[in-house]
Amino acid sequence: MLADTLLAEFQALLGAERARADADTLALYGSDETPKFCLPEAVLFPTSHDQVVEIVRLANRHCLPLTGRGAGSGNVGGAMPVPGSVVVSFECMQRIVEFDVANRLVVVEPGVVTDEIDRLARKHGLMYAPDPGSGAYCRIGGNLAMNAAGPRAVKYGATRDHVLGLTAVTGDGRVIHTGGRTTKYATAYDLTRLLVGSEGTLAFITQATLKLVPAPETVATLRVCYASNQSACEAVSRVMNQPTTPCALEFMDRRAIDAIREYGDGVFESAGLPPGTQAVLMVEADGNHEDVPRQIVALEKALAGPELLQIQSGFTREDTVRLWTARKSLSHAVKRIAPLKINEDVVVPVGRLANLVNAVDALAEFHRLPIVAFGHAGNGNLHVNIMVDNGDEEEMQRARACRAALVQAVIGLGGSLSGEHGIGSEKRHFVPLEVDAPTLELMRGLKHLFDPLGILNPGKKLPD
Amino acid sequence: MLADTLLAEFQALLGAERARADADTLALYGSDETPKFCLPEAVLFPTSHDQVVEIVRLANRHCLPLTGRGAGSGNVGGAMPVPGSVVVSFECMQRIVEFDVANRLVVVEPGVVTDEIDRLARKHGLMYAPDPGSGAYCRIGGNLAMNAAGPRAVKYGATRDHVLGLTAVTGDGRVIHTGGRTTKYATAYDLTRLLVGSEGTLAFITQATLKLVPAPETVATLRVCYASNQSACEAVSRVMNQPTTPCALEFMDRRAIDAIREYGDGVFESAGLPPGTQAVLMVEADGNHEDVPRQIVALEKALAGPELLQIQSGFTREDTVRLWTARKSLSHAVKRIAPLKINEDVVVPVGRLANLVNAVDALAEFHRLPIVAFGHAGNGNLHVNIMVDNGDEEEMQRARACRAALVQAVIGLGGSLSGEHGIGSEKRHFVPLEVDAPTLELMRGLKHLFDPLGILNPGKKLPD
Repeated sequence: MLADTLLAEFQALLGAERARADADTLALYGSDETPKFCLPEAVLFPTSHDQVVEIVRLANRHCLPLTGRGAGSGNVGGAMPVPGSVVVSFECMQRIVEFDVANRLVVVEPGVVTDEIDRLARKHGLMYAPDPGSGAYCRIGGNLAMNAAGPRAVKYGATRDHVLGLTAVTGDGRVIHTGGRTTKYATAYDLTRLLVGSEGTLAFITQATLKLVPAPETVATLRVCYASNQSACEAVSRVMNQPTTPCALEFMDRRAIDAIREYGDGVFESAGLPPGTQAVLMVEADGNHEDVPRQIVALEKALAGPELLQIQSGFTREDTVRLWTARKSLSHAVKRIAPLKINEDVVVPVGRLANLVNAVDALAEFHRLPIVAFGHAGNGNLHVNIMVDNGDEEEMQRARACRAALVQAVIGLGGSLSGEHGIGSEKRHFVPLEVDAPTLELMRGLKHLFDPLGILNPGKKLPD
Repeated sequence: MLADTLLAEFQALLGAERARADADTLALYGSDETPKFCLPEAVLFPTSHDQVVEIVRLANRHCLPLTGRGAGSGNVGGAMPVPGSVVVSFECMQRIVEFDVANRLVVVEPGVVTDEIDRLARKHGLMYAPDPGSGAYCRIGGNLAMNAAGPRAVKYGATRDHVLGLTAVTGDGRVIHTGGRTTKYATAYDLTRLLVGSEGTLAFITQATLKLVPAPETVATLRVCYASNQSACEAVSRVMNQPTTPCALEFMDRRAIDAIREYGDGVFESAGLPPGTQAVLMVEADGNHEDVPRQIVALEKALAGPELLQIQSGFTREDTVRLWTARKSLSHAVKRIAPLKINEDVVVPVGRLANLVNAVDALAEFHRLPIVAFGHAGNGNLHVNIMVDNGDEEEMQRARACRAALVQAVIGLGGSLSGEHGIGSEKRHFVPLEVDAPTLELMRGLKHLFDPLGILNPGKKLPD
């Protein structure tokens, strides 16, 4: 239990409403999308940079662990409290500090909802390119913490590629300013990109200057059906080996398609998949009105190949929305297959995607577990969901073995543990399989430099 | 003088030919393009990663400062020895370790010439996007150290944006492996981008995995003349505020144009500049054959405006080469104006470019010095060359005052000291004007973490 005196200090700082330790609030902030739970000692809702500074300084004096939190929509336990920790929720820091059309940048606080940034940009012919599936409710602070991405990353890159500068508070309460407002920069050490993806373990970001890009005039979508995973993955390789880069190149295996169907959205049924479909690609091109049709021709040419069953184009705006709604529902839809979804967010060089998908098939068979694979194929980034009954210990044992074998396979293919979800608490025991000991030791040194007492998001990112 | 025993140790490690302390070699490696000189104690030419590791470990045992060096084509003293230091030249490590077309990546040693990477990529329909003006002779290791860039950065980004992973040796001789081979990555702290641009002060990079992009099918060039700097800069803003991003958007002021003319290349004379031309933009679009003409129309529309004198297009391939040869000769050509060129590589948000150019004009007048300004306007990155007679102390005083005022103006405009040349030894005293004390303190901590004895490129990047 948090000492009453300490809670009182936080309440004096933030107001009673914004420093809470009542049972309802604690219960609400005990988890993110990970199916685990840990009650925090208190939940703080700062509304300004200065308050964050004071919180971190106070926590230092009491050696109190702080767990940063955006919307709690992560699924690797990145925002899950550890025993004895206090949650710092950034959801009340949601000011758009500055919007500079001429310089194509926006300055935001961490609690701004990601899609809101894009919506604002669109009003001025611009776009905020990163588009995580949770964009409608996730917070930019969480995106920055995890280096979030989405379908558009194949053309536009991830969150890290769209940050010009940051204001942040390190673990020992120092305020730092990184980067700047320019699109080129060779002055100081690049702390900006170091903080992005550091999962709140080095510093809490209180303000970010984000780069905007010109909004495309139009988008066209293809739904492409193949008779096998292998042939769909080979098509992905062909697409990524010709000059027209799509703005989305999504893969769904058979179980993923079934999951959407069952979910009742219907778009994949009503549009009619050809018989024998085992894998679907969703491919999108964006740009101006004159060029998108040319891009589509180039993409269709690359998509053509063995076991291609159908390329469907010419979707109406409504159908396109339904296609994407279905695609984005997947991460929830698959939960109907089994009580527990173990979601690995692995990534391999795109030329190895077929090897990865084949490895997943083999693992599913060997471990006798349903696995649903879908995701951002153009980046070689698949969400591999091992579906398991967590009430059945024997099945759980198989699932753990399957997961470990998957990670080994990915690393063997020159890949990485996480493409966009991050490591959090749930994957950090795997990190030493990928990152060697001297590099990890240096990273621990980095953590110590930024956060000497280890109070920022302990138990996350780095292995013990 | 380096102790004979230590030289002998280096010679035992590298062979006598690759560990040299003869006067001729020392004289050759006493400077980069900066007009300063400092004799090193010895020059080492490692040929492998393992040799670099041994060099750094040996230097640690003797607390010997090491100055890393690519081609020595930098102009901020980044590769200039400090008294008592030994130069580690990477020019003999020039293997292309791997070229992976399917995954659009290349693995190189630091001594590979930058243009060679691009040439190799082009053979496979790919491109290495960063194109520093020194590309024909600079080494990729130097580019990585400084986060080098060139005209194409306006569309494709700088060196940092094209690195997937690194192998490096920290100051205390630890070997680290950062990043990986995938185009998305959310696993460990991003040490890759931290090392890029760290000017060899944190670690020596011994291997880099670089991202390649599809090569454009064609390129088209415009030469655009304006009656004033102001009108040219406003055109730059208009171009950067519409959706078609050019692959080059270069600015030259009147003195720059004259410098090229005088240099005798003739392309700017023979092609005939309209009377009254005070500023020229070079604008390029790249892409596929169908789309580039559309891009040119869009760019011409944005370029049109007050005081536009001429847009010339339809250059032959030969004329385009001559235009770029002239542009690239600038950095040498201006040296004829005065004995000393003080080259500032400042960058501002692109919407502030006109303010920067106006400030430069005012400074030139106030300090009674010729200033030549040209550069990568699309990124707001100008090379501001203060031309001065270094034999004239009074003039030198004015030049120093002018330089300090320029830096203040740039920072006041929300800009930064360096867009692509880095800080080296020559600009580090200005860094505290831009980077605040707590952030600098953290950077010093970072330096100490990577290089506890401070033997890697001392006297560079960070201010004393």
